[in-house]
Amino acid sequence: MDYRNTRMWEELNAAPAILQTLAAKNAGVLDEIAKAAKGALNAYTVARGTSDHAMMYFKYLAESILGLPVASGAPSVVTVYNAALRLDRSLVVACSQSGKAADVMEVVRRANDCGAVTVAITNDESSPLAKLAKFHLCCFAEEEKSVAATKTFSAQLYLSMLLVSALAGKKEDFSAFLHTFSSNVPTIDAATDAAAAEFISAEECFLLSRGISAALAFEAGLKLQETCYIKARAYHSSDFYHGPMAMVGKGTKIVLFASRRALNESSEQTHREDYVKCAQKMLELGADLFIVTDDEGAFSGMAAKIIPVAGGGDERLTAFYFALAAQMLACKVSCGKGLNPDSPRALKKVTITK
Amino acid sequence: MDYRNTRMWEELNAAPAILQTLAAKNAGVLDEIAKAAKGALNAYTVARGTSDHAMMYFKYLAESILGLPVASGAPSVVTVYNAALRLDRSLVVACSQSGKAADVMEVVRRANDCGAVTVAITNDESSPLAKLAKFHLCCFAEEEKSVAATKTFSAQLYLSMLLVSALAGKKEDFSAFLHTFSSNVPTIDAATDAAAAEFISAEECFLLSRGISAALAFEAGLKLQETCYIKARAYHSSDFYHGPMAMVGKGTKIVLFASRRALNESSEQTHREDYVKCAQKMLELGADLFIVTDDEGAFSGMAAKIIPVAGGGDERLTAFYFALAAQMLACKVSCGKGLNPDSPRALKKVTITK
Repeated sequence: MDYRNTRMWEELNAAPAILQTLAAKNAGVLDEIAKAAKGALNAYTVARGTSDHAMMYFKYLAESILGLPVASGAPSVVTVYNAALRLDRSLVVACSQSGKAADVMEVVRRANDCGAVTVAITNDESSPLAKLAKFHLCCFAEEEKSVAATKTFSAQLYLSMLLVSALAGKKEDFSAFLHTFSSNVPTIDAATDAAAAEFISAEECFLLSRGISAALAFEAGLKLQETCYIKARAYHSSDFYHGPMAMVGKGTKIVLFASRRALNESSEQTHREDYVKCAQKMLELGADLFIVTDDEGAFSGMAAKIIPVAGGGDERLTAFYFALAAQMLACKVSCGKGLNPDSPRALKKVTITK
Repeated sequence: MDYRNTRMWEELNAAPAILQTLAAKNAGVLDEIAKAAKGALNAYTVARGTSDHAMMYFKYLAESILGLPVASGAPSVVTVYNAALRLDRSLVVACSQSGKAADVMEVVRRANDCGAVTVAITNDESSPLAKLAKFHLCCFAEEEKSVAATKTFSAQLYLSMLLVSALAGKKEDFSAFLHTFSSNVPTIDAATDAAAAEFISAEECFLLSRGISAALAFEAGLKLQETCYIKARAYHSSDFYHGPMAMVGKGTKIVLFASRRALNESSEQTHREDYVKCAQKMLELGADLFIVTDDEGAFSGMAAKIIPVAGGGDERLTAFYFALAAQMLACKVSCGKGLNPDSPRALKKVTITK
């Protein structure tokens, strides 16, 4: 199967155009949420799978930009242990592509009872979750048919960024970024070809990053798992040093997502030193290292394979390049292995857990 | 190397005796924390590696029993992004065996500045973290020499349980449990022999559970990674269905931790149905399934290999059986593979990350 003929490829390529309409379409709701959430002392996210990776991105942004502590909710606390969660001073963000996740909804119900400000992020305005939460941010991504979520993930990231921006009381204009991003899609495509060829025979790999970009490493791992059956495992690089690194041996495939930008200039040097140290350590251990980055110069002279992307003005925006690169890589590898990325074994599009 | 001659074996076997002294030795501090944290609206944990798995256990207990939303802190938010985290209404729990984790300390410093109630859990009263936090709960586990943390992990779990109990205003007496637990150590030892033999040739495996017991699945995974170089990956079973399950094929080794008890009787049936469904699904996919459980009857007639443990009166306590079983399994497998669990490749006892 030619990857260009998959739904996954069609859908992931639709992301840039979808993002362009999101700010305007959700502007009113974002304003209302910002007003309603003024007194929130913490945030509580509820999601599964890919949507949970969007919430990981939200956590880093909300904590770093707003100083708002963000807890990643474990639905079983409510669905199994019947916890009387005290969420009265919380902003609760529930993210689900389908808007049908039963366990996520049960937490939102509890949050509504507490008087929390509840926000749903879904791709279906008529979904039960969209109706249950007090506010709904819509992905407006049209129906997603491939089991592997791609365009809706990019939309979830974008809505998360807009939400934090609104909560910070900022009016930011991302149209210039979106224009550049859109025009750079062919270069991301070209940049992932060589790595895709090498991953066709891979049985396992590790994906590393940290901070905001870690959400993309985790999502890249999930995409490689579900569409390529590669035993892919993502780690925050800082956690990786605390044990898992012992699994790295000669030839172990590792993908590092290294963002040149942080949220402000003062952090960029820390970021870069960290990534460089990580790359060196992995190479010393004999890893077969790939680096998705907009900071090629930082790794010059290293025996790593660079997957160059243009990157955005800050790390929030570079995330969209990383997401697209990861999705393209997974789609190409899946087809290269003779698999169909649109319908992985054992998985359905909508998974209902309790 | 005979596993009985390793430090890891000696240390993990020391846990039951260590736990017996912890409540009395930390009683005063626990009272003080309970008073100081009365106004806390949420909790924020900071830890890495094994200590972070103890915090995962703390999160489930604090949310389920106290209704307190618990965020797992990502230190990079402070160390990289310089976030002005608003933790003034938070109980901040920082956990580190050595008490020397630089990134963890930076978050505690920020929390102190906010006026948060800061609690350190370490194994060294004179460590910088113990001194930095307003309160210190000590593991009193004597020096841990094996790189793989075992006895200190059990102590961290126990202190987490005592902390939640104190915050709930309860005086619970766990001495009967500890007595039984201690006397059951030989049966846990015997129960892990057969599985250990089968894992010697394993290159990878998945560890599954949910809720409180998930913390033990994650810790079991880390132990197998660092001492056996097995590509072990733990998942909340509910998350596993959202993608990663596609990696399961014929013969994939899976270890399920299934607790008969929850926190109260009304949840036990939900728990059991969940575990049984999970086991059935994995067997249908052709997995080579091991179940560590105190609920053997629930899985009768299934083609799964049971690792029976006695279990405690509720899931909080069964955790100690699961922890010990996981540690014993890892220690035996490591030695069975001709490795030395006390000094894994590429790892040091104290890892300092930023």
